Amino acid sequence: MTSIKKRSKKAGLAPGTLIHMGRPRAGATKVDMVEYDETRLERRPVTSLDHCLIQKGVPTVSWVNVEGLSDLEVLRHFGSCYGIHPLVLEDILATDQRPKAADYGEYLYVVLKMIALDDATGEIKSEQVSLVLGQNYLISFQEGLEGDVFEQVRARLDNEKARLRGMGPDFLLHALLDVIVDHYFLVLEKLSDRIEEIEDELIENPSTATVQAIYQLKRQMLFLHKAFWPLREVASSLQRRDSQLIRDTTVIYLRDLYDHTVQVLDTLETLREMLSGMLDIYLSSVSNRLNEVMKVLTIITTIFMPLAFVVGWYGMNFKHMPELDWVYGYPIVLVLCLVMAGGMLLYFKRKRWL
Amino acid sequence: MTSIKKRSKKAGLAPGTLIHMGRPRAGATKVDMVEYDETRLERRPVTSLDHCLIQKGVPTVSWVNVEGLSDLEVLRHFGSCYGIHPLVLEDILATDQRPKAADYGEYLYVVLKMIALDDATGEIKSEQVSLVLGQNYLISFQEGLEGDVFEQVRARLDNEKARLRGMGPDFLLHALLDVIVDHYFLVLEKLSDRIEEIEDELIENPSTATVQAIYQLKRQMLFLHKAFWPLREVASSLQRRDSQLIRDTTVIYLRDLYDHTVQVLDTLETLREMLSGMLDIYLSSVSNRLNEVMKVLTIITTIFMPLAFVVGWYGMNFKHMPELDWVYGYPIVLVLCLVMAGGMLLYFKRKRWL
Amino acid sequence: MTSIKKRSKKAGLAPGTLIHMGRPRAGATKVDMVEYDETRLERRPVTSLDHCLIQKGVPTVSWVNVEGLSDLEVLRHFGSCYGIHPLVLEDILATDQRPKAADYGEYLYVVLKMIALDDATGEIKSEQVSLVLGQNYLISFQEGLEGDVFEQVRARLDNEKARLRGMGPDFLLHALLDVIVDHYFLVLEKLSDRIEEIEDELIENPSTATVQAIYQLKRQMLFLHKAFWPLREVASSLQRRDSQLIRDTTVIYLRDLYDHTVQVLDTLETLREMLSGMLDIYLSSVSNRLNEVMKVLTIITTIFMPLAFVVGWYGMNFKHMPELDWVYGYPIVLVLCLVMAGGMLLYFKRKRWL
Amino acid sequence: MTSIKKRSKKAGLAPGTLIHMGRPRAGATKVDMVEYDETRLERRPVTSLDHCLIQKGVPTVSWVNVEGLSDLEVLRHFGSCYGIHPLVLEDILATDQRPKAADYGEYLYVVLKMIALDDATGEIKSEQVSLVLGQNYLISFQEGLEGDVFEQVRARLDNEKARLRGMGPDFLLHALLDVIVDHYFLVLEKLSDRIEEIEDELIENPSTATVQAIYQLKRQMLFLHKAFWPLREVASSLQRRDSQLIRDTTVIYLRDLYDHTVQVLDTLETLREMLSGMLDIYLSSVSNRLNEVMKVLTIITTIFMPLAFVVGWYGMNFKHMPELDWVYGYPIVLVLCLVMAGGMLLYFKRKRWL
Amino acid sequence: MTSIKKRSKKAGLAPGTLIHMGRPRAGATKVDMVEYDETRLERRPVTSLDHCLIQKGVPTVSWVNVEGLSDLEVLRHFGSCYGIHPLVLEDILATDQRPKAADYGEYLYVVLKMIALDDATGEIKSEQVSLVLGQNYLISFQEGLEGDVFEQVRARLDNEKARLRGMGPDFLLHALLDVIVDHYFLVLEKLSDRIEEIEDELIENPSTATVQAIYQLKRQMLFLHKAFWPLREVASSLQRRDSQLIRDTTVIYLRDLYDHTVQVLDTLETLREMLSGMLDIYLSSVSNRLNEVMKVLTIITTIFMPLAFVVGWYGMNFKHMPELDWVYGYPIVLVLCLVMAGGMLLYFKRKRWL
Repeated sequence: MTSIKKRSKKAGLAPGTLIHMGRPRAGATKVDMVEYDETRLERRPVTSLDHCLIQKGVPTVSWVNVEGLSDLEVLRHFGSCYGIHPLVLEDILATDQRPKAADYGEYLYVVLKMIALDDATGEIKSEQVSLVLGQNYLISFQEGLEGDVFEQVRARLDNEKARLRGMGPDFLLHALLDVIVDHYFLVLEKLSDRIEEIEDELIENPSTATVQAIYQLKRQMLFLHKAFWPLREVASSLQRRDSQLIRDTTVIYLRDLYDHTVQVLDTLETLREMLSGMLDIYLSSVSNRLNEVMKVLTIITTIFMPLAFVVGWYGMNFKHMPELDWVYGYPIVLVLCLVMAGGMLLYFKRKRWL
Repeated sequence: MTSIKKRSKKAGLAPGTLIHMGRPRAGATKVDMVEYDETRLERRPVTSLDHCLIQKGVPTVSWVNVEGLSDLEVLRHFGSCYGIHPLVLEDILATDQRPKAADYGEYLYVVLKMIALDDATGEIKSEQVSLVLGQNYLISFQEGLEGDVFEQVRARLDNEKARLRGMGPDFLLHALLDVIVDHYFLVLEKLSDRIEEIEDELIENPSTATVQAIYQLKRQMLFLHKAFWPLREVASSLQRRDSQLIRDTTVIYLRDLYDHTVQVLDTLETLREMLSGMLDIYLSSVSNRLNEVMKVLTIITTIFMPLAFVVGWYGMNFKHMPELDWVYGYPIVLVLCLVMAGGMLLYFKRKRWL
Repeated sequence: MTSIKKRSKKAGLAPGTLIHMGRPRAGATKVDMVEYDETRLERRPVTSLDHCLIQKGVPTVSWVNVEGLSDLEVLRHFGSCYGIHPLVLEDILATDQRPKAADYGEYLYVVLKMIALDDATGEIKSEQVSLVLGQNYLISFQEGLEGDVFEQVRARLDNEKARLRGMGPDFLLHALLDVIVDHYFLVLEKLSDRIEEIEDELIENPSTATVQAIYQLKRQMLFLHKAFWPLREVASSLQRRDSQLIRDTTVIYLRDLYDHTVQVLDTLETLREMLSGMLDIYLSSVSNRLNEVMKVLTIITTIFMPLAFVVGWYGMNFKHMPELDWVYGYPIVLVLCLVMAGGMLLYFKRKRWL
Repeated sequence: MTSIKKRSKKAGLAPGTLIHMGRPRAGATKVDMVEYDETRLERRPVTSLDHCLIQKGVPTVSWVNVEGLSDLEVLRHFGSCYGIHPLVLEDILATDQRPKAADYGEYLYVVLKMIALDDATGEIKSEQVSLVLGQNYLISFQEGLEGDVFEQVRARLDNEKARLRGMGPDFLLHALLDVIVDHYFLVLEKLSDRIEEIEDELIENPSTATVQAIYQLKRQMLFLHKAFWPLREVASSLQRRDSQLIRDTTVIYLRDLYDHTVQVLDTLETLREMLSGMLDIYLSSVSNRLNEVMKVLTIITTIFMPLAFVVGWYGMNFKHMPELDWVYGYPIVLVLCLVMAGGMLLYFKRKRWL
Repeated sequence: MTSIKKRSKKAGLAPGTLIHMGRPRAGATKVDMVEYDETRLERRPVTSLDHCLIQKGVPTVSWVNVEGLSDLEVLRHFGSCYGIHPLVLEDILATDQRPKAADYGEYLYVVLKMIALDDATGEIKSEQVSLVLGQNYLISFQEGLEGDVFEQVRARLDNEKARLRGMGPDFLLHALLDVIVDHYFLVLEKLSDRIEEIEDELIENPSTATVQAIYQLKRQMLFLHKAFWPLREVASSLQRRDSQLIRDTTVIYLRDLYDHTVQVLDTLETLREMLSGMLDIYLSSVSNRLNEVMKVLTIITTIFMPLAFVVGWYGMNFKHMPELDWVYGYPIVLVLCLVMAGGMLLYFKRKRWL
């Protein structure tokens, strides 16, 4: 995960110049399409883009999903067929977009991040998703990471009785946004589990690795904050029905989406505050252990230094040292040493160092 | 207390799909009902949900209390009887809702947390309460934790002279919200007592356990912050009479509720700031004690190392060491050692280390 | 000073239930009254509350001062005489109110804290004052702490030429609020003096007691912040003439009051920032002194350990140690030791440890 | 510099009571006056205040400068001559005013701080300036510190071709405010130089004195923050032409003043953030040096303690110690000691402690 | 990079007085000019400023670029030719302007910073750019640092088919702003790389140099924050079409510019938060290493002090020490020492210090 994408290639080019900034991807750009209404559903991969895929004024809803952005021709095709502004096409390609919703009258452009957590490495996998909502169509552009989170929406579409089938493309837009935001919860849950693991580590066996793990999590939170925060505004503007393309019946669902978004942000902030509290714990526990180490050192030194002095004393070679000749000199020193050591231990007991 | 509830089960499902996310609960969902007006009050458990419980347009007020959410049929019953939107039913079940008030015209939906402190473990027990206010009814859904804080409201209902009896279900809504917020004060009071205990500990005998207790309290505060903060908005919107279901006579009471909510938040913030100050105290007291330990070590070392050198000196085995043969050699060394030790002690006295 | 008052008694009671929450007070609730206009002033203690004290529509201004809230009958008397809402009476009794101003049409309710600093203990004495402003009267309720800050207002009333005498009860309200806010300045001044004392302590002789004093001050600041902050809103709403009871001529004075309030808050924030800077100083000075201690220890050890090794060396009992038999062996070792010690001292000089 | 001025004298007095709160000043209050229009300029000290200085409705502009506020009669004179409200007179005297601009219809009152840095002591000298702008006059009240920053404005007035001469008193107001704000830049520049000096000290030779200097600067910044921050509001309100006394032609200059004010605040915030970063540097450098000291101590101890053990070993007086009799015993111990010391040194090299 | 420019020269001068505050520059002020429409493009250096360069009401677009501000005559020329207000000219010269956009009716004035990173020293090079947009012209004033970031715009102008050629000077304004903001991204990318390098250093080999590098980066961030933050407001006001000089067709591009600006700020904040997290890591790693050092010291001391006592004991010279005469005395002491050392090692193993 790099939070700062490279824009260097783009600097100074004319606005609307299409340049692929995302990750390189093996294989061609893949396009597939679903057309549906309450009674009928047709699903097919798109192999040729010779003429425009979706007819205007048709009552069926079309969902075109584009995976991978390396083939610029595909984008140009959609741009000319549906009158999408070159700046929007540029935004679709620039995969470090800030989440936003922009109303262009004919169509509504929404861009946000699809987020998943790699279970093996614990890294956050992030992919930009652009959604273009028209009168009777929705086009979704994915950056091209393997897989997406839309499978459940596809399954609901297959079900003839689903509400999704009877409503317009704006409801499909809601469905896709909803499933994306639901996956934000999943990622936050996993991060929350990771935080609890680290908490246990902190108490049992804190180490520099723990601090690095905290820092790693902090960076991930920072990344998520950057990805989630503008979403509040996006959901709020959708729910306010700023665009004509949003029908009345969908508004209540978008309000629900807004609530979810706010909740995601709340949860994120809670996790961030927990993390910053943990570093304080770590520091206080490290300085506490330092104290413990120093006490051991001080106790040993304080007990043995005076003793060493005493035995050094009677190791002197003066001719005239009467004690050396006393019969009880040796036992007296033995007792003296025991008394000194005992006294010291008592002193430390009282000072609560032991 | 886990602040992050598991939403994993829900991800990607159609909005309005009912899934029980709360804690598992032994026994069935319990429904009971109170019907009252100024002169009459009837209280009965509800055993069958074959037909709708509350008649429209009747002047008596009905309060239906649902405890436990495991039986989805009960929810569907209320949904179809009173025209509650599937998204609201979904919110009732999703027990990690952010407190909010939403006006659906026919009814007003309020969701918030009922909070209590487990006296034994010091843990916060939190239960989601959903309130649906209609023209002549109020339905409360509790997550299903044993017991609730509504006993005092029930007692007031029993009293024929109580203002509660003469007013509409919006006043009952106020009564329930008021008693919930009053219990927030109780929890904060207990946490405040706990903070004062820890303060005493900090000064008398700080340890890593104290830091952990502070951290534990911080997390609880964080949880309460998340639960209380949106309530301000809720109370404010109720008091602004955004909904037709709130009568004029109730508004002044809701303003009072708003004041209480602001006060709860004030108190919470005060407690949080006190907590963060305490960690600073801890750190400064730990480094102070380290200083004390190091001084003891340094004093001992500084006194005995030179002495040890002196007695080591006269332990050398050179043939030609004139001092060893002097008659007064031994007493001179004795005096020398006393002078050195005394001088050191004086030096430390002056440096204020003793 | 406890910043968190006990509300436990109140939880769940009907709103408007009168319960005395303040401090217990010996002796009865004391009521006295001043009636004045430009020419006349009458002052008398009130002994009986059989009929209402103040007549409606009379041109004289009446100021009733109630000290102590333990006698609930007194409150009920005022409630019924002047139509004060039960919720307001409840607020008057609940002595942990957040400062606020609420307009009830017939009367204006203002509640805030009267603050003084106990010179002996350095503790903050805080007492809640509720002010009810009517068409031709002002009733002030004090929590009942011995003494108040209104003496100067009484003195001004006695002066026939004072502007206060010629104006309405709204001007009296301003006078009382003004004198209360002026006393906030006095408290802040004393705290500021205390902070400067601690600053000197920090530099001359920092100890854990200093940290505790800082923490103590921080808590007091926190308490004052909680008491002062909402006042800005109060003063601002009064100055905006939200209420009909405020005359045009008083507005300019209330704007002045608002300026004072903002200044109190500014000063408070400045003091708070100074305090938090002081803890940093303390920590850095403690770690600096630790460094000093450690340097002494290291210098002593580094000088005497090699010397001790040398003299230990010639204390070995090998039969074949040629140096022991040399005539100059002893003086050579003496010189060697002096050279070693001198070299070490030079090394530390260069490292700037000495 | 004391950031908290003493208001104690004032507490509880009637609003509008004039009391001198500023610093005592030797000598009398000094008043001088400039009258000018495009062609004429007259400058004279005012010795008698028997009648009002400025005539109403005259086309010339009059600037009266009052230095020193100890003579309350002077203030009363201006109050009665130009209808200045007693509360404004009180504000002029209360020399701890928060900067503000207040429109009284007939005149506009602006109060702010004139700031200079004492080059010798590095202390901030602050003096309150009150400006009263009327239809054809401007009165400036200075607290009475020796000297002011208006010399350049006086010089521009002397120049007949200066735009200042052809415009109204509102332009003079701008000129005075502008020169005051320009001096804020000067003070910030000097403080910025001081910060750079301390930065160098931090890296070369950090000491507790450095920390105290940082703290001292922080306090000064705090003081300036308090003095500058409200100015933004002042400049903004002037530029919005809230008052009739501001002519259209002056507005563009006041917008420029607003820009300068914002820039002053930006610069101040930058300096404050730099300062707080410096304390972190200090702490980390102190703990780093502690590490260095501890390494020296540990290296010395670790090398010499085992050696001391070895030589102590062969200093034992057992009858039966075969090594003592060996011919090569002594040289073997010599080699052993060298090997041990060398091994230790190698170990520390590898651990990068050397 | 000095974040605080010297304004001292200016203090107190009349507003609109032109004084060169920027860096001194060798050589003369350089002016060159491009005139273009859809079919024609002429580019020429300007050598004489005898008469005004651009005619009013001509359909071609003129871009005049001024490099270097030392020649005040040039500025005066533009001022008188195009009616630019003296205050604007003063702003152009004062090279520490806060970014802003100001609409003067006839023309629009935009000022901001052009930023580049010196690859060799890692220092930020900042140059002020002022843009004056008129009906059919755009004048850009550069502070005079060698080179600029406009080359790509010039290249696009040369291309006859570029959209830039067919549109007005407001689109040219957008092009210049866009390329400047694009270079902000480049600078942030490089700083981000530098941060990642430091992160690796922190983990592998943290030193005081690392802390200084962090501090250096923090200061640079602070500088960029000051330069970038007001830009948000600028871009927002341009996009809101506050000025008549912005055509409808350009608005969508300015909205894009606004998005980029917000993204720059987001990225900057992320980098700042990463930096502040790094200092925490550093501190915790330093205190961890201190712990390690202290453990080594304590282990060595704790093992060898008791051993030294034992061998000192048998180095005493008492006549009557029976052990000295025992045949197995020496081997017993040998075993005793081994047991003691082994026991200590075991103890430390268990305490996890080894």
